[in-house]
Order: sequence, then structure tokens, then C-alpha cells
Amino acid sequence: MNQRLSAVSDLIARFKAVREDSLSHCRPLSTEDYGLQAEPFTSPPKWHLAHTTWFFETFLLVPFLEGYERKDPLYEMLFNSYYNGIGEQFPRPKRGLLSRPALEEVVAYRSHVDAAIERLMSDDGHPQREVITDRMRLGIEHECQHQELFFTDIKYSLSINPLHPVFSPSETDADTSDIESPLRWLSFPGGLSSIGHEGPDFCFDNEQPRHPVYLQPFELASRLVTNGEFQQFIDDGGYQRPELWLADGWNTLQQERWSAPLYWRGDHEYTLHGLKPRSAHQPVTHVSGYEAEAYARWAGARLPTEQEWESAASGTLLPEKNAPLLHPGSAAPDVADLQQLFDACWQWTRSAYVPYPGFSAAEGAIGEYNGKFMSNQWVLRGGSCVTSPDHLRPSYRNFFYPNDRWQFSGLRLARDIA
Amino acid sequence: MNQRLSAVSDLIARFKAVREDSLSHCRPLSTEDYGLQAEPFTSPPKWHLAHTTWFFETFLLVPFLEGYERKDPLYEMLFNSYYNGIGEQFPRPKRGLLSRPALEEVVAYRSHVDAAIERLMSDDGHPQREVITDRMRLGIEHECQHQELFFTDIKYSLSINPLHPVFSPSETDADTSDIESPLRWLSFPGGLSSIGHEGPDFCFDNEQPRHPVYLQPFELASRLVTNGEFQQFIDDGGYQRPELWLADGWNTLQQERWSAPLYWRGDHEYTLHGLKPRSAHQPVTHVSGYEAEAYARWAGARLPTEQEWESAASGTLLPEKNAPLLHPGSAAPDVADLQQLFDACWQWTRSAYVPYPGFSAAEGAIGEYNGKFMSNQWVLRGGSCVTSPDHLRPSYRNFFYPNDRWQFSGLRLARDIA
Amino acid sequence: MNQRLSAVSDLIARFKAVREDSLSHCRPLSTEDYGLQAEPFTSPPKWHLAHTTWFFETFLLVPFLEGYERKDPLYEMLFNSYYNGIGEQFPRPKRGLLSRPALEEVVAYRSHVDAAIERLMSDDGHPQREVITDRMRLGIEHECQHQELFFTDIKYSLSINPLHPVFSPSETDADTSDIESPLRWLSFPGGLSSIGHEGPDFCFDNEQPRHPVYLQPFELASRLVTNGEFQQFIDDGGYQRPELWLADGWNTLQQERWSAPLYWRGDHEYTLHGLKPRSAHQPVTHVSGYEAEAYARWAGARLPTEQEWESAASGTLLPEKNAPLLHPGSAAPDVADLQQLFDACWQWTRSAYVPYPGFSAAEGAIGEYNGKFMSNQWVLRGGSCVTSPDHLRPSYRNFFYPNDRWQFSGLRLARDIA
Amino acid sequence: MNQRLSAVSDLIARFKAVREDSLSHCRPLSTEDYGLQAEPFTSPPKWHLAHTTWFFETFLLVPFLEGYERKDPLYEMLFNSYYNGIGEQFPRPKRGLLSRPALEEVVAYRSHVDAAIERLMSDDGHPQREVITDRMRLGIEHECQHQELFFTDIKYSLSINPLHPVFSPSETDADTSDIESPLRWLSFPGGLSSIGHEGPDFCFDNEQPRHPVYLQPFELASRLVTNGEFQQFIDDGGYQRPELWLADGWNTLQQERWSAPLYWRGDHEYTLHGLKPRSAHQPVTHVSGYEAEAYARWAGARLPTEQEWESAASGTLLPEKNAPLLHPGSAAPDVADLQQLFDACWQWTRSAYVPYPGFSAAEGAIGEYNGKFMSNQWVLRGGSCVTSPDHLRPSYRNFFYPNDRWQFSGLRLARDIA
Repeated sequence: MNQRLSAVSDLIARFKAVREDSLSHCRPLSTEDYGLQAEPFTSPPKWHLAHTTWFFETFLLVPFLEGYERKDPLYEMLFNSYYNGIGEQFPRPKRGLLSRPALEEVVAYRSHVDAAIERLMSDDGHPQREVITDRMRLGIEHECQHQELFFTDIKYSLSINPLHPVFSPSETDADTSDIESPLRWLSFPGGLSSIGHEGPDFCFDNEQPRHPVYLQPFELASRLVTNGEFQQFIDDGGYQRPELWLADGWNTLQQERWSAPLYWRGDHEYTLHGLKPRSAHQPVTHVSGYEAEAYARWAGARLPTEQEWESAASGTLLPEKNAPLLHPGSAAPDVADLQQLFDACWQWTRSAYVPYPGFSAAEGAIGEYNGKFMSNQWVLRGGSCVTSPDHLRPSYRNFFYPNDRWQFSGLRLARDIA
Repeated sequence: MNQRLSAVSDLIARFKAVREDSLSHCRPLSTEDYGLQAEPFTSPPKWHLAHTTWFFETFLLVPFLEGYERKDPLYEMLFNSYYNGIGEQFPRPKRGLLSRPALEEVVAYRSHVDAAIERLMSDDGHPQREVITDRMRLGIEHECQHQELFFTDIKYSLSINPLHPVFSPSETDADTSDIESPLRWLSFPGGLSSIGHEGPDFCFDNEQPRHPVYLQPFELASRLVTNGEFQQFIDDGGYQRPELWLADGWNTLQQERWSAPLYWRGDHEYTLHGLKPRSAHQPVTHVSGYEAEAYARWAGARLPTEQEWESAASGTLLPEKNAPLLHPGSAAPDVADLQQLFDACWQWTRSAYVPYPGFSAAEGAIGEYNGKFMSNQWVLRGGSCVTSPDHLRPSYRNFFYPNDRWQFSGLRLARDIA
Repeated sequence: MNQRLSAVSDLIARFKAVREDSLSHCRPLSTEDYGLQAEPFTSPPKWHLAHTTWFFETFLLVPFLEGYERKDPLYEMLFNSYYNGIGEQFPRPKRGLLSRPALEEVVAYRSHVDAAIERLMSDDGHPQREVITDRMRLGIEHECQHQELFFTDIKYSLSINPLHPVFSPSETDADTSDIESPLRWLSFPGGLSSIGHEGPDFCFDNEQPRHPVYLQPFELASRLVTNGEFQQFIDDGGYQRPELWLADGWNTLQQERWSAPLYWRGDHEYTLHGLKPRSAHQPVTHVSGYEAEAYARWAGARLPTEQEWESAASGTLLPEKNAPLLHPGSAAPDVADLQQLFDACWQWTRSAYVPYPGFSAAEGAIGEYNGKFMSNQWVLRGGSCVTSPDHLRPSYRNFFYPNDRWQFSGLRLARDIA
Repeated sequence: MNQRLSAVSDLIARFKAVREDSLSHCRPLSTEDYGLQAEPFTSPPKWHLAHTTWFFETFLLVPFLEGYERKDPLYEMLFNSYYNGIGEQFPRPKRGLLSRPALEEVVAYRSHVDAAIERLMSDDGHPQREVITDRMRLGIEHECQHQELFFTDIKYSLSINPLHPVFSPSETDADTSDIESPLRWLSFPGGLSSIGHEGPDFCFDNEQPRHPVYLQPFELASRLVTNGEFQQFIDDGGYQRPELWLADGWNTLQQERWSAPLYWRGDHEYTLHGLKPRSAHQPVTHVSGYEAEAYARWAGARLPTEQEWESAASGTLLPEKNAPLLHPGSAAPDVADLQQLFDACWQWTRSAYVPYPGFSAAEGAIGEYNGKFMSNQWVLRGGSCVTSPDHLRPSYRNFFYPNDRWQFSGLRLARDIA
């Protein structure tokens, strides 16, 4: 088999594996859980399964597979997330109200599209071969992103049920590594540094182009802020002291009546394993950018910029990880290096999500993927316990509004070198 | 068997029948349909099944069955609708988010409570026998009311799905009686009349006490306003002419952008049988009180008062009806009497829902059943195609806000005799 | 001078007096006070002055005075309150933003219209003489209504200023009649009674037609509920006990965080004389219909219906009153009759504001005066310390939403005779 | 007189001049105009006059002038804008409702504080001399900022009046320089550049510290985008094409129903001179950041970053300007340099408002001046026709939310050099 055929066959294998993962992640759910959407910013599991399928159908099958017909013409609108270039969208806040198509119909939709994708990929002489391969890779990465959203969305939607539903029982009795890891400060010299993805591997358009930036010397904490440390912030009146907060953060805190991270319940915490005692040494998670920023100010530090983070993370080893964990673990106590870069929580940065110099979005509806969201959001870096292993790289730019809390988002402190 | 035992056994038989009806009405649903709540004013089918069970548990088993324990202590809060006297309530707009307890658990909850109710009822010597019997009858009537709400709620929740789901296929091909029935005016002399329920049969507290009222002479239309007539109102600019509307109605129209009855879609209509061509001779339904009132003004008539309606309806024969129909039928063309009093659509009156002279609510939480809603709502009289046959009586007072449209609500014209 | 000329000259005299009153009521204001509109439901004093002028211009001068031209064509829209039949209206919530026309321009507008009205009235042979006279009377009564709104609106708008502005200093040091008046119950036999205005004097269309009603025997309290009595309701947890409240009232209380009547400030009360110690024996005022209703339930009584109230008040003597007082006074301690019917606070009834049997609104825009508001509001009866003396009559129907509190609204208890 | 005394006397002179300017800018207003606040984001002129006075009182007189007492203790709260470190604030949306204190009282408040400031400044031996001088400079700059806000706020508040009030008549008949200026592209080489204020002159804390940045080569347009050019964008469907907009911008456009810049009225434009024909060659102004960004994308260009702008503007000559103009003028047709940097409209950049590396806010309430607003806003650079001449410098960072339109905000195109 020549190299190109081998690459195609690798791509198909990966496609199948990722498609199968989406279904297997859902396995603990009841049929009724598949429809849950507790807030407009979450989507029901069934919708994720359908929308990722829609993506392949819309951007690969419809344009490139001759004779392909959509499974149902209404699906074009029902499962379009935000692509105005494709057409109208079913209102996002109402996705949880689509009891029809039923789950089995959505599963059948997946099979229908999967089979057609294999037909398309087997056409070795397709004149658009290159675009098709690029879009296949994008579709696969897109589905991996939705797998992470699946975990964070279902956690949120189950959390509002007073019965504290267990998504999946905990496999271990306790966090055996739950020993305090001292916070160490690691220094970085600053100067000119190059930021952004390079090389042949896949990346999203927002990670490019690679470009030089000039950094002042800075320090980063060796590990993430822990629940125990965040508790001290609360005990010190952190949620009652406006001087610690950005103005918009303080307004949000008052409107939403925040007094602790999203899933704290007394000295317990709601997790995908159900309601559990909270460990002091695990990283604080499900905090907004505003809470992260206020904590950092209280601690006499600050959030890193995304450039500092990427510059420091470049060259570190990526964690070996095969499957999502459902809760972030503690840092190892004896390690002096940068820990928890990719496998515990996303780390809020103080950087607004704006285009890199020279960025341009792709032509057409596919160009709506990232570029149009480049305002009002903050960049998070790293990865979380539920991030797909393939998304772990120093250049990956995640982004959410600074008031968002339902992702596995925590923080790593930074500070200037005087 | 003596008479009392016979009455008890009749009551148990009716209890079982009504309980079974609630389940059988749901049979066309998919598991996912059971959780639908498209707007806060609707409730999911599963919630109706649980709440009606909660009612028997809360008002009969907990106070009167020795040793009874709730199936789950959290259900007290989860399935409490609005009884502050019982305690806290799970937020109404979030009922659709209770994927747990699962449907089978709710069905098991029903069985659990049904068995306990039979135990309670079999205790012939219970010192609270009389209160128990009264509450059994109330609980049964309460469940019948929720059966009607089940139909109107699921219709609304399915209606927002662009796939136009069919709740249940139509059994007949067409409305064979769909021949125009001329509108006739029937005169009533007015004078002193007695209003309100009397006699040994069950009634709700809001139908009492019976009391005299003085009425002016009036006329009532022999049948309800039809779709065809309402179309003329629309064609004459009815939704664009503020002079036809109450001020609050006009504001609502503009905010909600009303331009036709709730389920009209072009010349079709969404029904529990799916999207169907609209019949000109069937009664207009799913109109708000404001639309009804504006139509009446446009037609040179008015809505009846509830006293006029009851006075006119007293003594008419109740329809024979064994099961809910899913859509209102046309009036018979050759009948000169008051038609469609009870079996097509509820009829908006121009009467505000206020207490009758001498009304007093029961003591305790059960007193919250009706009395506390006696403001800002309008009275509807009659009954609809999905009303339980046992609720059909001239004194029954239904009530909704004048902007509500999701009930089977239509109108019958009235006018003064000059 | 014949009788008709005499009547015309009386009407002109009354017109001039009322027009002058509107200005003199405003005299304590600063120029900046004239523009205040603290909430959409209030209007600025300057706007009241202009709108009442607009009313004469629109309903008398434009249709009936040949050659008349509006002072400014834009005023037609700027000072139209809610008459859709006339045309578009400047948005109500923004009335306070009309710094132009300036106060002196509005005063000039008044003079301009007044002069034209006198010209119109002096045309003894006008073919529309009768309609003109009717509308003159309506315009005068309309202006009297706005004089009352002026007092309640400016009180509200000043009340939100932490400086507790004094509208007008108190002329007396204290309420010298502030001695407790015992509450006595007066019995009324019920039966057939006639309700509604009759006779040649002016009345609004909503007071007609006069018609018979049948009443059960009832009792009314001799005086209004006092601040001291209402304080006991509060002390007994009145604002924390849902069982005392209508459901909509309880929702409002929670949303608005009500815990006392509108202007209570600790043991003081904000009045048009500024912040003053609260007298226990003065009637409680600025309570909503919901608060009145809850108080009555707590007190083991109820609110009267408007028919009971009118029936009881018929034949009582109207108070002699020459000018508005700015605060309601106490009841006289030694009087066993119905006191405080007209001169202290409006009295909430349990009657919804609906049309009388046979009511019909006038043709055209003038018909929007009352009829279109006949939904969702409650009737208040009597009169208040700031009501124009000419509006005091048993048949007068005032109406507000049950959550409104900025009128001088209080309550008189009623109860059934067992 | 030694240098220090000379500096103090210069400072006092400037203080007096700026304080007098605030009053003289208001001179065209009527007393009623002084209270206008058409939206929460604007403040009434009277409030600006009082708040700038409060600033001197709070940050200079109260801490440093022995024996000073506030004019009125309630003013501390009434005229506090957003300084939580000082205490509670009167709700911002209600500033327009403060008819008291009256205008003359606010003017007296200004005199009272001005006299006390002169006393404080004349104390040559005050131990806190240095801090006092720094705060005096800050207080003066603060007042200059409010002078600009005064113009933009009153423009907005008058604009909603259908009478199109004239703030001040136009002194010239027409824009005599209204000849088309061709758009030229000026190139800049990029590389390492230093950004941020340096030198002894005053700057705000957010302009510091000066720091190196690395820029790619770029081009800037020689002049601002004109009304005529923006009209082409509209004619080309700019407001109907989602692909041109950021996602948040498109949502805002739909919610607010934007279809043109804020003050466009047909082919006219509302200005501080009243409603005027719109000139095609004057710069488009009162556009949001979203509109600016969409226009740039439509034009095949982009917005500059704030670093590009500052780097390009450094070394240009500042305009000679003595007093605010009330409308931006056209660019000169024959000039090939960067025009309209400082004297026409603020220029939206694509940079989020975040702290410079090493930024830290001052201790205490004064530190709330800038730092707490560093989220969700965009940086604008340059200056506008109503900006105080002393604020014109390349390093000045203005900031507003990307949906804000009531400032004199326009745009200058940038593009990459391929």
C-alpha cells in the first residue's frame, strides 16, 4: 500500500473510532437524559450526535458525493448550529424540545451518513480529493470538540436535578494521589518568541499564522490553584470585596448571586460521579474568568497571557491519555516542573480572543467555524480531564465568555519578575 | 352489600378507572415525548403522571394511612405544583429537565401509591372516613383535570417541532358533518336567576355557594364561532385595528406578534393528528380571551357573562361522551337549540374569575386548590373535546388568563336585547 | 340671560377655574421637577399640563373650530396619551425626556388653546353645540382626573430622591384629630338594589347604564383600616405568609420584595410634606389591591364588592371640600356612620373592572376613554385627599391594576352576615 | 517665583480654566436640558457638573484639607459614579431623576469646592504636597473627560426628541472643505516598536508601562472612512449579510434593528446643530465597533490594532485646537499623510482593552479609575471633534463596548502587506 492510500486508510480508521467514541461516551445515559438542555448554552446529547453528523453531511456529502440526498430535508435546519452560510437554524434554546427525531432515528442518521462517508472516501480518484481530506480531518476534530462539550453539557443539565444523578459511578474509592503539592514558581526570560502552530499536523485556523511576539520576563506557578486555596479566598471575603473584581465581573457576581464555584455544595461538589466530598488538593474547577481573575488579584498575582502560556508550554511533554477522565486529579507532590498543563482543567488567560496577525478565515460557510467568535471572549489554554487526547497541544486556543463556568475551567497563577 | 359499602366500592372502581385512563392517554407517546415542556405554562406528561400521584400521597396517604412513608422524600418537593402549605416546590419552568426519576420509576410510583390507596380505602372503620371520601373524590376530579391539561400541554409542546409530530393518527378521513350550520340567536328573558352548583354530586368549591343574580334580557348564539367566520375577521384587518381590542389585548398582540389563532399555519392547522387542512365550519379554537373579545366587538356582539351562560345552559342535556376526542367537531346544521355547549371548545366569558358571594376556601393547603387564583383570570364555561365527561355541568367554572391560547378555547356570541 | 346662556357661562367659568387650578397645583415645583417621570406609570407635571390641553385641542378645536391650526403639528403625537384613533403616540416611558418644548412653551400652549376654546364657546349658533358642550364637560372632568394624577405622580417621582424633597410644607404641626376611632360594623340588608349613575349631572360612560343587582346581606366597617392596624398585620408575619395572599399577589410580593406599604420608611412615611413620623390612627394608604386583600383575609374579613360599596354609600352626604389635602386624615372618634368614604383614600374593592350590562363606548377615538381598559384591573371606590371635589359621588368607578400602589389607595373591610 | 511655585500657579490656572469650561460648554442648555438622561449609559449635564466636583472633594478635600466638611453628606453617595472604595452609589439609571439639588445648588457646590481647592493648593507646606499635585492633575484630566462625555451624552439625550432640538446653531453655512479626499495607503515596516507613554507629561495609568511589541508590516489608510463610502456598504446589503459580521455583532444588529449609523435619518443626520443634510465626504461617525469591523471586512481590509495605530501615529504633529467643534470635518483633499488622527472621530481598533504588561492600578479607591474596566471593551485611538485638546496624544487609550455608538467613533482602515 502506498503512502497516500495508507494515509486515507488511517483517516478512515480514525473517523470510525471517533464516531464510535461519541456513541460510547453516551452509553451511561437513559433515553430521557439524551434530551436534556438545562440552559441555552448547553446542548442535549442527542443533538450533539445529530449535529456532528450534520457537519459531515453538509460539508462533505452534499457538496462532494454525487447523488447524495439528505436523510431528511428538515435536518438541514434542525441540526445547523450557527452556520448562516448554510441557512436558517432551529432556535438554540429549544434544542431540548426536539423529542422527534427519536434517539434511534438519530442513531440511524449517523449510520446513514457514516456509510456515505465511506463511499466518498473510497473514491480514490475524486477531483476534490484534497479538499475532502482537509474537511474530513476538520470534521473529525469538530466531533472531538463536541465530545468534550457533551461531558460538560450533560454535567450541567444533570446538576440542576435535586436527585444529584450519577452519570457514571466512580471507579476508584478515592483520589489516592491526594497529597499536597507545594506551589513552585518557574521563571521564564521573555524576549522574542514565536507563537502559533507550525508543522504538518492538524490545527484550527485560529492557531495560525505563527508569528513573533515580544514578552517581558515572567513566572508561572508549577500547578493549578486548588480547592483548598480557593476556599481561603472565599473565607477572606473574596465574593464580598468589589476591589478584587473587574467591574463587569462584580456586576455578574451580583446578578447571578455567585458565592462559590459552580458545583460546590457545602463541603461537597457535584461531579459526573454524583455528589462527592470535595478534595482540598484537587484543582478548583468550573470557575469563570472573572473568578479566576479576582482570585489571582487576591493572591498578589495575575493570570498569564496566552502568549506567556504557550511560550512556557512549548517543548513540554504531552500527557499519555487514552480516554476522558470525569474529574480532574491532584498534582503530583514531588514534581518541580509545569504540571497539569493539559490533563486537569483549562486555564483562563488574561488574553482576549482576537485574531492573530495575518489571520484570515476560510471562504464560505466553513469560515464561520472560528473567526466570527473573535470578540468578547477570553482565551483558555491547555486542556481538561474530558478533552480529547488529540486536542492537546501548546498552540490550541480555547475560548469562552469570561462569565462562563460550565467548562472544566481553572487557573494557573502568573506574575511579573520585578 | 349495603349502600355505603357500595358507594365505597364505586369510588374505588372510579379511582382505578381514572388512574388507568391517565396512563392509556399517554400510550401514543415516545419515551422522549414524556419529558417535553415547551413553555413554563405547560407541564411534561411524566410530571402530570407524578403530580396526580403526589396529590393522593400528600392529601390522603401521608395524613391518614398509618405507617405510610413517601416513595422518595424528595418527591414531596419535586411534584408539588403550587401548594405553599406543603412546602417548597421545584421551579415550574424546569419540570422538563427532570430526566430522573425515569418514566418507569414514575409508573412504579403510581403503583406504589395506588396500592396504598386501596389499603386506606379498605379500612372501613377509619375514624376520618368522611374526610377521606371527600378527598378521594377531589383527587379523582383533580386527575381528570390533569388529563385535559395533558392533551393541551402535549399539543403545545409538540407543535413547536418543525417535523409536525403526529400524536395520534386520525381515525376518520374527514369531518363528515362538515356542513354549514346557520347561526341562530336564542333569547333569554333575564330577571332573577340562581347560579352555582347544588345537589349531592361533586363540585369544586369555586362553584359554590349557589346564589341569586339579576340578569338583563339577552341572546346567545346557537353555536360557536367558526374558523370561516374568524377568517373574515382577519381578512377585515382584525389584527391591525386597535379600536377592536382591549388595551391590554392590543399590547399583547403587538408583543407576541399575533396574526391568527395559535395553531393556524397558512390554510392548515396543527392538530393532535398532525398538520391538517383547516375546516371552515369547525369552531375556531385556541384563541385568547382578547381575540375572542375583539372578534365579538367586530361582529357587533359581545361575550356572554358567566351568569348568562350558566342560566342559559341549565337544564340542557349533557352530551353522551365516553372518551376524549382530539379535535372539536362542527355543529349540526339542522338544530335550533344551544349547540356545542360542552363538547367542542371552552367558551370565553366576559366575567373575571372572582369568588361567589359567601365563598370561602377550605382550611389548610387543600384550600389553595382554587381560591388563590381568583384574580386577573377570566372564566370560561362549557367544556372541550378533551374534557373529562365527568366535568361537564352548567356550573363548572374554568379559568385562564385572557392571553392564554393553548387550551381548546373558542367563543359563543351574546348580545343585549334592545 | 336665559337658562341656556347661563349654563354656557357656568361652563366657561368652570373651565377657567379648572384650567387655573392645574397651574396653581404646580406652583411649589422647581423647573426641574416639571420633567420628572420616575417610572413609566407616572407622567411628568409638564406633560400633564400639555396633555390636558391637547385633549381640548384634539376633541374640540380641531373638529369644531373653523380655521383652527394646532400650535405645533408635532404636539399631536407628543401629547397623545393612548388614543390610537388619533394616531401615533410618543412612547410613554420617555415622557420625562421631553426637555423641549420648555415649560414656558407649554404654558403658552395652554393660553393659546384656552383662548381658542373661549372663541369656540362664544359661538352660540354652532351647529354642533350639543356635542361641543358634552365634550367641554368631559374635557373639564378629564383635567380634574389629571390633577389627581399630578399629585400621585409627583409624589412617586420625588420619593425616589434620597434628599426626601418637600413638595409643600405642612401647614399644621400635627394631626390634631389623631385620636383612635373604634371600628364599628354597619349592617346592610342586601336584596335587589340599583347601581350606576342616574340623573342630569355629569358622569363617565363606565358608570352607566344604571341596572339592578341582587346583593346578599353584608356588613361594612365604619372607617378605613389604619396604619396601626396594618402594622399588626406586618408584625404577625403578613408579608411572609403565602396562605394570606392571592397567588399573583404572592408572586408580585416576591418579585418586588414588598415588606410594607409603598412610602413607609421605618417608623416614618414619605409624604408630600416630606419625611414625617407615621401616625397610627391615620388610614393606611399606598397599598396595592393584593396587600388590601391579604390584610382583609388576615383580619377575618374581606374586601367589599363595588356593588356593596355603592349601595351602602348611596344617600350619604358628600364632604364639603374646596381644595386637595396632601395627606389623608384620621377618622373622627365619635361617629358611628360610614366615615372616610370620599375624603381620605380610595378603597379597593374585590370587583374586577368590567362593563356594566348594556354598556357601550362612544364612537370614535373618544370611545377609547374608558372602555378599552376593562380588563385585568380592579375597581376602587370613594375618593382620596387629592381627588377633585367634583368627582365625589357614589357611582364613580376608579380602576387600577391590583399591583398598583402609587395612588392614595387604602381599604375598608367588609364581611358576610352569617 | 521659583519653578515649583510657578508649576503650582500654572496648575491652579489650568484648574480654573477647566472648571470654567465645564460651565461654559453648558451655556446653550435650558434648565430642563440639564436633567436629561435618555439611557443609563448617558448622564445628565447637571450630574456631570456635580460628579467632577465630587471627585475633587472626595480625593483631595476630604483626605487632605483639614477641617473640610462635605457640602451635603448625601452628595457623597449621590454623585459617586462607580467607586466602591468610597461607598454606595445612587443607581446610575436614575441620575436623570435628581431634580434636587437644583441647578443653582450644583453651581454653588462647584464654587464651594473650587474655593476649598484653592485654599488647599495655597498651603505650600502641606506634607502630602506631591500626592495632592498628582491628584489635582488627575482631577483636571478627569473633568476634561467628562466634558467630552457631556457633549456625547447631551447629543444622545436630545436626539430622541422628535422636535430635533438644536444644541447650538451652526456657525458656518456649510462644510467648505467638503471636497473628496482620495484614500491613500501608507506603509509601515513593523518590527520591534515601543508602545506606551513616556516622559514627564501627564498620562493615565492605563497608558503605562511603556513596553516593546513586535509588529508585522502593515498599511494604514490616510483618512477615515466617509459617509459616502459607508453608504455604499449599506447599499451593498451590509446590514443584511451575516458573513460580514462578528457573531456577537450580528446578534446585536438583530436585537437593536440597526440599519445605519446611530444618527442617520434618511439623507440627513442629527447633529448638535440640529438635523442637517449629511455630507458624503465627512467621516462616518457614531458607528459601533461591530459596524466598523463589518465595514472593514466588506472593504477587504481590517481594523488596525492599537499597537499599529500608536506606532504609526508617534511623531506626527498634534493639531492646533482651542475649543471643541461640534461635528467632525472632512479630510483635506491634497494631503498624503495620516490625516484625521485626532480631530475628527475616535478610531475603533481590533484590540481588546487589556492591561499592558506590568500594569498595576493605584492603591485604594483611586485605583478603580481605569483598571477594573479592562474586560469586554475595545480600544479606540486618536481623538474626536469634542475631545479636550490636552487629551490628544498617540498613547491615549479610549475604550468602549463594541456595541456602543453614542461617542464620536469612526474608523480608519488597515491591511496586511502580503
